[in-house]
Order: sequence, then structure tokens, then C-alpha cells
Amino acid sequence: MKKIGILTSGGDCSGMNAAIRGAVRTALRLNLEIVGFRKGFLGLMKGDCITLDSLAVSGTIHRGGTLLQSARSPEFRTPEGQQKALEILKGLGIEGLIIAGGDGSLAGALALHHLGFPVVGIPASIDNDIPGTDMALGVDTALNNIIYAIDCIKDTASSHARAFVIEVMGRNSGYLASVSAIATGAEFALVPEREIDLGEICMRLRTRYEEGRDNSIIILAEGAGSAQQIADSIKDTIGFETRVTVLGHYQRGGAPTVFDRLLGSRFGKKSVELLMEGKRGIMVGISCSVLGVYPLELVVNGTKSPDGDLLHLAEALGI
Amino acid sequence: MKKIGILTSGGDCSGMNAAIRGAVRTALRLNLEIVGFRKGFLGLMKGDCITLDSLAVSGTIHRGGTLLQSARSPEFRTPEGQQKALEILKGLGIEGLIIAGGDGSLAGALALHHLGFPVVGIPASIDNDIPGTDMALGVDTALNNIIYAIDCIKDTASSHARAFVIEVMGRNSGYLASVSAIATGAEFALVPEREIDLGEICMRLRTRYEEGRDNSIIILAEGAGSAQQIADSIKDTIGFETRVTVLGHYQRGGAPTVFDRLLGSRFGKKSVELLMEGKRGIMVGISCSVLGVYPLELVVNGTKSPDGDLLHLAEALGI
Amino acid sequence: MKKIGILTSGGDCSGMNAAIRGAVRTALRLNLEIVGFRKGFLGLMKGDCITLDSLAVSGTIHRGGTLLQSARSPEFRTPEGQQKALEILKGLGIEGLIIAGGDGSLAGALALHHLGFPVVGIPASIDNDIPGTDMALGVDTALNNIIYAIDCIKDTASSHARAFVIEVMGRNSGYLASVSAIATGAEFALVPEREIDLGEICMRLRTRYEEGRDNSIIILAEGAGSAQQIADSIKDTIGFETRVTVLGHYQRGGAPTVFDRLLGSRFGKKSVELLMEGKRGIMVGISCSVLGVYPLELVVNGTKSPDGDLLHLAEALGI
Amino acid sequence: MKKIGILTSGGDCSGMNAAIRGAVRTALRLNLEIVGFRKGFLGLMKGDCITLDSLAVSGTIHRGGTLLQSARSPEFRTPEGQQKALEILKGLGIEGLIIAGGDGSLAGALALHHLGFPVVGIPASIDNDIPGTDMALGVDTALNNIIYAIDCIKDTASSHARAFVIEVMGRNSGYLASVSAIATGAEFALVPEREIDLGEICMRLRTRYEEGRDNSIIILAEGAGSAQQIADSIKDTIGFETRVTVLGHYQRGGAPTVFDRLLGSRFGKKSVELLMEGKRGIMVGISCSVLGVYPLELVVNGTKSPDGDLLHLAEALGI
Repeated sequence: MKKIGILTSGGDCSGMNAAIRGAVRTALRLNLEIVGFRKGFLGLMKGDCITLDSLAVSGTIHRGGTLLQSARSPEFRTPEGQQKALEILKGLGIEGLIIAGGDGSLAGALALHHLGFPVVGIPASIDNDIPGTDMALGVDTALNNIIYAIDCIKDTASSHARAFVIEVMGRNSGYLASVSAIATGAEFALVPEREIDLGEICMRLRTRYEEGRDNSIIILAEGAGSAQQIADSIKDTIGFETRVTVLGHYQRGGAPTVFDRLLGSRFGKKSVELLMEGKRGIMVGISCSVLGVYPLELVVNGTKSPDGDLLHLAEALGI
Repeated sequence: MKKIGILTSGGDCSGMNAAIRGAVRTALRLNLEIVGFRKGFLGLMKGDCITLDSLAVSGTIHRGGTLLQSARSPEFRTPEGQQKALEILKGLGIEGLIIAGGDGSLAGALALHHLGFPVVGIPASIDNDIPGTDMALGVDTALNNIIYAIDCIKDTASSHARAFVIEVMGRNSGYLASVSAIATGAEFALVPEREIDLGEICMRLRTRYEEGRDNSIIILAEGAGSAQQIADSIKDTIGFETRVTVLGHYQRGGAPTVFDRLLGSRFGKKSVELLMEGKRGIMVGISCSVLGVYPLELVVNGTKSPDGDLLHLAEALGI
Repeated sequence: MKKIGILTSGGDCSGMNAAIRGAVRTALRLNLEIVGFRKGFLGLMKGDCITLDSLAVSGTIHRGGTLLQSARSPEFRTPEGQQKALEILKGLGIEGLIIAGGDGSLAGALALHHLGFPVVGIPASIDNDIPGTDMALGVDTALNNIIYAIDCIKDTASSHARAFVIEVMGRNSGYLASVSAIATGAEFALVPEREIDLGEICMRLRTRYEEGRDNSIIILAEGAGSAQQIADSIKDTIGFETRVTVLGHYQRGGAPTVFDRLLGSRFGKKSVELLMEGKRGIMVGISCSVLGVYPLELVVNGTKSPDGDLLHLAEALGI
Repeated sequence: MKKIGILTSGGDCSGMNAAIRGAVRTALRLNLEIVGFRKGFLGLMKGDCITLDSLAVSGTIHRGGTLLQSARSPEFRTPEGQQKALEILKGLGIEGLIIAGGDGSLAGALALHHLGFPVVGIPASIDNDIPGTDMALGVDTALNNIIYAIDCIKDTASSHARAFVIEVMGRNSGYLASVSAIATGAEFALVPEREIDLGEICMRLRTRYEEGRDNSIIILAEGAGSAQQIADSIKDTIGFETRVTVLGHYQRGGAPTVFDRLLGSRFGKKSVELLMEGKRGIMVGISCSVLGVYPLELVVNGTKSPDGDLLHLAEALGI
């Protein structure tokens, strides 16, 4: 193998730059040429790539987002698009490809694998819903972003008698909501995995109020409902002033944490090594603090099961 | 004067603790007793107060919110309520009162002044819409909270081709939206003082896109419209993926900045000194970096005019 | 078991409050009374303790330091002191004790265990040099504090042609220095485990300079040498302006990260459960992301071996 | 005037990028060409400059440091060097120069002015010791960096009985030390303007200790003494464990605050406008919140007098 490529796709996350940098530094040390496609699969479809040298990744490890940018490519989702991508890769002399992203991006990686092209995936998704790895890239930074905001809201909450509904990311997964609720001492975590019982929430809010605890924080995964509707319901049902915060893309960005810088560096390094060893169709992952690999087939067709330990902890802390 | 009181009312803000601390330390140095009412006018109506000594304010200057808490009191808004408050103050032997808060709280202060009770107001409102002071307490911290979040979103924005609508506080004032737009290099600031022209925004977004600049940040004051509606309009009109963030009460809290710690300390100190000097019915303020006073009558019945310099700066920077 | 105690000892760290809170909430749920000794073993020697209820730990999870405070007690180190401590514990009706701290504190825990008193230890030391756990409490927060400061210095470094020596904690362990060097893209990590070769450092600095890279960051574990002396040597040997930063106790404090809030919560909860299950003379720890236990005997007499994976990563990234 | 230049010199500070960006955007709006010299006067001596367009300053307002870099040039300090610089400027067709920096850099600006070349200075120095402006660029960010670190240390301080000596910048000025002491509630601010009385400090530390307040924070301006020596003295004299932190260049960098982003933007814009209006040999400044100008002659030969208001505030708060 003489030349490989790397791209970041789907929602960006903090730590992607560390992964690119780790891959580049490892490739250079192994005398491999490495190019980066701009804007994910969109750039791949156009052959829009740049050669990555040491300077290209210098001063990037502490930046959020991805220096290669990210975008969606409807064309790549078609069999014809995938065939075209394969030809572009071959035309550029690229013999292996690293793809960092979430579910959709890893499905794209699998498609290329099925066409016989050597790919390695890197799990990068703040929702932490990718099977085959305990933690995806960007999760730790997103969580720390979230608690920074909630800590600020708690200052206000403890100054007022109010309920606060804070919407965090997670269309299908309540991981961010659950963990940030534990970490901030919030009263409620509303997650897509469990039906919301607004009546019970209102009852518990009122009980708290009667016990003299007149402010409450409710953390809502976006997939579990609408923050504004829940706030309106609470206001209508028990008359509590209820304020809404939607953290949105604030969660994705910002300087990555130490954990994500290291995880990204490790994932990037390992991906290059795996390609060199002839491994294909796999995703790197971290399990029990140790790097491992996991078949892309299982990643794309599997579901991550929730962390039982976490649920017990939440229960013990009264969430 | 032997004994004075202090309360914080309305929306809390970072720097209130510094103001309380500054007042307490100054009062103690002048051998004045000082008590704090809990939960603003609500506590005043109940005579719910605590004696504030050096220990009570120790370790508070770097905390957001207000250690005295804040709440609304419908009762205090009635003439009977105000008369009752006056009697409670007299019953407690309190000879002067410091009230920190926004418009509504300062109107309450004026009401007590009209009944002949010595009051001094401290302008505290993150919207920066209080006449008689260049900066209200909490504004600088709120602005820095806002740009921290927007900087994070910019990491993501520069990784994707997208528009982002970020809603900040400001029901009647576009100050936070305008200043944070300048400070983050955002493309648009939508403010209540100016009608929103969605057609023009969409046209400019499309022009930017055709020039190769495929992401844009739109900062919206809450009083200027609904973030979700604006995002939906952009999506419908020009097909741009548009993401919404509602910063909500995140803006109010968090460790105060140096500016707010100093301003609060100064406001607190000055308020006590003014009461001792026999000044009444006034609000402390900062104008041209110098502390001054301003009649509460003018505060409550006036309007703050927008900062012309700021508008020119925004224009020069292309917002 | 009806009543247990908890204390924090040695250098404090972020996450101790989460551990106390986790222990208290778990104890209350199990109908156990729990008291906290103030100022570590010093308070234990005086029987200075407070009953911890839900309110006592409310609003503490996001604070650095330890609400129970910490201090050293020379008296406790003597056999007579330990015997006295035992009698005080018995006199207070305490049947089990949780001790959170570093090497010295866990040695104290072991001493009580040897006297037959039920103890469980919680590893809390930012140096991450405690055997029996992959991560000690406070390490993740300390690391994130460190990189925040170094990221700031890099802004300056990239504006100037200079070398920067940054001293981080770690008397016997280079863990913080190594990990923060990887995470910030620093050029050198000087650690107590490896002799410093100043000649080689100067040579590499000069080579970098001749290649056009005119600024360098050197991260020094405090146990590996004096930051000022190293800076002076570099200046004398190759004439580079070299600036010193000593991060000191800045590293210990601040709002804990999500990781430390969760780890603390888990450690606290598990410690109470272990006491209830009749386990003694052990320390809780985390290994492969799973909570486990480890004999205090081995903790106190063992040494933590460095992380081989980490060293390879550092090498791959050119540190 | 058709073409102007800009350079940043001396110690960098946060906000310099906003100043460059403000100058560039204003110049472009006025159809002026603008070039930036790399590495301050060093680049000027080599004619090493780049044309600055909108893209060159895009995405820089939130970055610390200076995108033009900074360095010292011994050659420029000689009359021959200055004459050579003049010829380089003329050779490049540059008709006016904006110089952002501290005392030394502004003295360089004055030298060019004396040779008849149109210059405008921008005060940029975190020490806030430049006459002619209430605030220099970078001061507000440096102060907020400092209090972030001290707030962290206070978490630890309140967990232990200890004294902490924290060294901040300020060779000739105690501004940073004084303001950060007020803003963090520190017990002592040691400044170059006032002789340190170690005996009195020890006496006050002991008194505090006897009153039950067993931790103290001492903030030291670097020009007032050595942190380590003061710590050793305290330890020797009264036996207190005393810890040292030297914040060093951490203070200079990091994302600029809102204040510095606005101030930089304003300074940059105004500098270009002043050059266009035919103003020369002046520095922009901010006084009473309003932009003004001040002769470079007076800047270079003057001294900034300390802020009396600040000293009274410090006294009132018991520092």
C-alpha cells in the first residue's frame, strides 16, 4: 500500500481533527502518502482531495469541527454513485480509505467494502449510539459542553422558583440526556427509549415544590419530544413558569476534551495500521479501555444496547 | 442610619453576588447593620430576611445567580402591598433599602421612594435596556456566555454548508444580539428595533452561497421573532438546512466576568455610601467608566437609546 | 450496619464532592446514617463530624474541591493516634468508614483495617499513580484544566519564536505530563521515569528552529526537574527566549468534568454497597470501564506500571 | 492614500486579530489596499508582507494571538534600521502604517513618525500600562484568564489550610494583580508600585488563621518579587504550607472576551479612518468609553497613573 485516503462525513464532532492528525502522522511515519477528501462523500464524488502533510494537521488538535469539512452526498447513496466513487479512488491511485462518521457514514463505508475496496471506519457521533465501541468520538466533548451550559442554568435555577427544560441531542438515544442528568444532578431525564409520562412529571414537580424545592431541571433528548410543548404542558397543568433551552449545535463544537483528543489520535493511528495489516471492512472501537475492531456489517445492522450500570446509577441518585 | 436592607429581584444575573458582597463589606466598615431579604419582594412582604455578615458573603463573588434568590410578588405591585412593605421595613428597624434588578424591580424601588422610604437602585439586567447606565450588571457575563456558545457552533458551521439561527435574550432590545454578532463575526443580527425582512435574508444567504461561503450564522433577539419559524422559512424558501439553538437561561448564569465582579462590587459599595449621604430615589450607574447616579423617576419612565457607535461598527464589519 | 462515616484526605481533587454525594444518596436509600469528618484525619482525631443528609450534598456535584475539606494529621500517623481514632469511631457509633484520597490517605485506611475496623478506600489523586484502578478520581479534570492552559499558551507560542516550559503536577509520575503533551501536540514531555537529557532537547529545539518551526512547548512533570532551571539552560545553551509557567494548584480545582462526576458518583455508591456487603480492607477502582475492588494492602505496597499503549502513541506522534 | 500596512509587535495579546480584521474590513470598504507584515518589525525589515483580503481575516476574530505573528528586531532600533524600514515601505508603495503593540512597539511607531512616515498606533499590552487609553487591547481577556485560574485554586484553597502565592504579569504595573485580587476576593495584592512588607503579610496571615480563616490567596505582580521566595519566607516565618503558581503566558492567550473583540474591531477601524483623514503620529485609545486619539510623543514619554477609584475599592473590600 502506497497511498491512502481519509474523509469525515455526517455530523461533525470534536476530535475529528485529532483522528485526521493521528492518521496523517502515522501514515508519514510508515512512508505512506495520505490524501484528505473535502466535504466527505461529496468531495469523494468529485475527486476533490488534498495531500496531507505534517503542516496540514499542525495546530489542529485543539480545534473543534473537522478541517476536511463534512457534507452529504445523495449521489453516493446510489449503486451508480458508489461505483463511480470506486473508480475515482482507483483513478487517484488510492488503495485504502478511512471514513470517520456516524451510522450513515459507516453504511457508506460498508458499501465500498462490498465493492471490494479496503476501508476502515472510525465511529464519530456525539449520540454514542454506534455499536462496537463503548465511546464514539465526540461524545465526551459534547457531554462536557452540555454540563457547562446546565451548570450555568443551575445558577439561575437556584435563584428562582422555576422549571427548566433543556433539550440535548439524541434522536434515537438517550445517552447524552441520561449522563448529563447524572452529572449535573438534574431531576429528570426524558429519553426516546422510554415513553414520557407528563402526568407523573407534573406530580413529582409539585411534590418537590411542596417539600420546599422550588426549582427543577428536566433534560430532554431531542428524539423524546419537543421542549416547548413539554414546557407548555407543565405551565398549563401546574402553573409553573417553565423555561426552555435548546442547546443545538453548541453541543458538537468547541475545543475537544483530553479524552477525545486521545481517542481521536488512537483511532487515527490504528486505522492506518489496520489498513497496512490488510484488515478491511471493519471499524475501530474502544472496549474496556482497549482498542479493538468490529465488523462494519455488524455496526450497520446492529443496535447499541443501553448501559445497565448507568441506569442503576441514575436510579440510585434519584433521577 | 443604623440598619439597612438589600434585595435582588426580577431575572437574576451574574454579578449580583458581587453587589451584595460590596454592599455588605462597605456597610460593616461603616458600622451599619445590613440584612438581606430572601426571594426579592416576596421575602420583603413576609419580612423574611437574614443578617448579612462577612461570612455570609464569603466565597460568593465568583458564583453566578444571587445568594439572596429572586422571585416575583404580585402583592407588592398593589398600593396596599407597598404600604404593607413599608410597615415591615419600619418594623424591622430598617432605614434604607438597596434594590438590584431590572425595570420592574426599579419601578418597585420608585414606589417605595414615593412613600418616603430611602431607596437606592442597582441596574441589573442582561438585556442592557435600563436608561441611566452605560452597562447594567450581568451584561458582560451574558455576552461572554453567548460568544462561547457561538464560537462552538462556528466550529460546526465551518464544517458544513448550513445556516444556523441562534436565539439570544432581548425582548425589547437588540443589544445582546448586535454585540454578539459583531464579536463572533456573525452574518446577521435580527433585533426587535428593526423589522425582519426574511426575503432579503434569504437573498443574501443565497448570494453568499454562490460566492462559495456556504455557512451563515443568524443571531436573533427573542423579541424579534421565533427562531424555529425563521429556520423553517429559510428551509422552505431556499432549501438550506437550518439549525436552531435557543440559548435561554444559559445566558444568565455562570461565573461572572471580571467586569461584572468589579461593577457589582462598585455598585454595592456606592449604594451604601449614597444611603449614608442621604441620597434617595436614585439608581447608581456607570457612564464614561465613572460611577454616577440617576433619578429612579427617569429610569422607570425613560427608554435607553441605542448605541450609534455600535451600529456604525456593525455596518463597517458587514453585518 | 446502621451508621457509617466518610472523609476526604490529602490533596483534594475535583470529583470528591460527587463521591461524597453518591455515598450519601446511596446510604440514605439504604436507611443508613452517614456522617462526614471535617478536614480528613484531623477531624477524625477530634471527632469533628456532621450528619450528611440530602440537603448537605445538594448543589455540590459541580463544585471543585471537597465540601468536607482536607488536612494532614501527624498524630494519626502514630500507632497511638490510630488507636485513638478507632475509639473515636466506636464512641460515635460508626461501624464503617469510607476514605477518599491518595497514597498517604489509603495507607491510613489500611492502618485502620489492620486494627479491625471496616474501611473502603476511594482512589483520588490527580497524579494517577495509584495501583488498582485505571483512573483515579480527579485525573480527567486535572488533564482538561492543563490542556485549557496550554491551548492558551499555544496561541502565544504560534505568535512568537520561543520555547515554553510548562510545569504540571506529578512528583513520581509522568502521567499528566505525557497525556497532556499528546493532547496538546507539545514537542516534549519530561517525566520523572526517564532521565532528562538537556543536550538532546537543545539539539532538537535547534533542529526544529532550522526547519522553520520556531516555537516549542516542553511539558515538565514537577518531579522531573525545575522549570526555571530548564528554561535557563535552554537560554544559555542555544540562546532561545524561554518562558516558564507553573500551573500549580490550578490543576486541582474547577468544575469537575463529566467523567469525574460519574466516576465519583459510582465510587461513592459502590463504597457504601461494599461496606454493607461486609467487604473490608479494599479500594474501589475502575478497570476496563468496570468497577472493581482491589486490596488496600496491594495498593499501599504496589506501584502502578506506566501505560505502554500511551508510550507508543506518544512515539507515533513524535513526542 | 491607496495602500497601507499593518503589523503587530511585542508581546502578543488576545484581540489583535480583531484589530487586524477591523482594519482590513474598513480598508476594503474604503477601496484601500492593505498588507500585513509578518513577525512585526522583523518582517518590516525584510519587506515580508502579504496582501490582506476578506478571506485572510475570516474565522480569526475568536482566536487568541496574532495571525501576523510578532517578533523583536534589534536592527530596527538603530537609526540606520529605521531609515531602511522607511525605504522598504516606500519601495512597497505603502503610504501609511498601523502598529499594534506595547511601549516598545509604539516607540518604534514614533521613530517612523519622526522620519515623516504616517503612522497610527494601537495600544496592545496586557499590563494596561500605556498612557492615553483607559484600557489597552488584551487586558480584559488576560484578567478573565487570571480569575479563571484563581477560581480553580480557590476550590482547593477552601479545602485546605494553606497560603497560595499566584504570580501574574506586570513588570512595572500592579494593574492585573490589583484588579484580579478584587475580582476573586483574594487577601493580598503585591504590586511593584508599593514595597512589599513580608513581616506585615505574615502577621496578617497569622491573625486570619487565629480567626479560623486558614487559607489565603496572595496575588503577586511579577515585577514585585519572586513568588517562590515569598512562599519560602512565609513557610520559614510562620510555618504555613505555601504553594506557588506562575501563570506565565497562559494569561496572554485564549479566545478573546467580547470586550477585546469589540475594542480591537473599533481600534482597527478607527486607525484606518485616521490615516485616511491625514492624522499622523497618534495612537487610538479609549477614554470614558469613547474612542479618542493621543500623541505618540506623549505615550512614549509618559507614564500611566494608577486608578484611584480602584485603590479605594480594594481598600473597602479589605485587600
